[in-house]
Amino acid sequence: MIASTPPTPYYAVIFTSVRTPGDQGYNEMADKMVALAALQEGFLGVESAREEVGITVSYWKDLESIKNWKKNAEHTFAREQGRNVWYQRFKTRIAKVETDYAFERKNRDE
Amino acid sequence: MIASTPPTPYYAVIFTSVRTPGDQGYNEMADKMVALAALQEGFLGVESAREEVGITVSYWKDLESIKNWKKNAEHTFAREQGRNVWYQRFKTRIAKVETDYAFERKNRDE
Repeated sequence: MIASTPPTPYYAVIFTSVRTPGDQGYNEMADKMVALAALQEGFLGVESAREEVGITVSYWKDLESIKNWKKNAEHTFAREQGRNVWYQRFKTRIAKVETDYAFERKNRDE
Repeated sequence: MIASTPPTPYYAVIFTSVRTPGDQGYNEMADKMVALAALQEGFLGVESAREEVGITVSYWKDLESIKNWKKNAEHTFAREQGRNVWYQRFKTRIAKVETDYAFERKNRDE
């Protein structure tokens, strides 16, 4: 789903990755990390899709929230597993969302 | 593929969308727009994946490059088609990438 985020500014963590072959526990951990992230102070939402590359964008109130999530022990363990097992390569980008705008189609019978 | 971007800072346009049913010329136009974007001054790269939602992140040198691309006539026509035909809803976020880091798996026989 498209994340419902508050008025700008806020932060985005853009995580783009290429997986290694096979699941190897990846999907279970990915679901667990999304659920755990959602409990963190400053978490605003997440969007995710994977084809040749996977793109996960998580949204956060500020840089401090992102730093705290990075320090979370379970998340740290998952990131280590990512480097050891699940990812061929990845890139993480931390970005300040300065402006945003949305479009929603009106139903024809409204 | 994961975009090769220069040292920070640079800009990201995060475009998250939900499609209407059927292709209706969408994929041809999407390919055309990626090819056209790549010719623009200040374009740095693009990453894209679609499952329930589509996420396309394009990277740009600065805000001026993004504004010029938005003014491009063919891109403006494609965006109008997007609102009229292809998208149920979308959200566009313009963000300044402040920091990034990458991981690449070493082959075991290296």
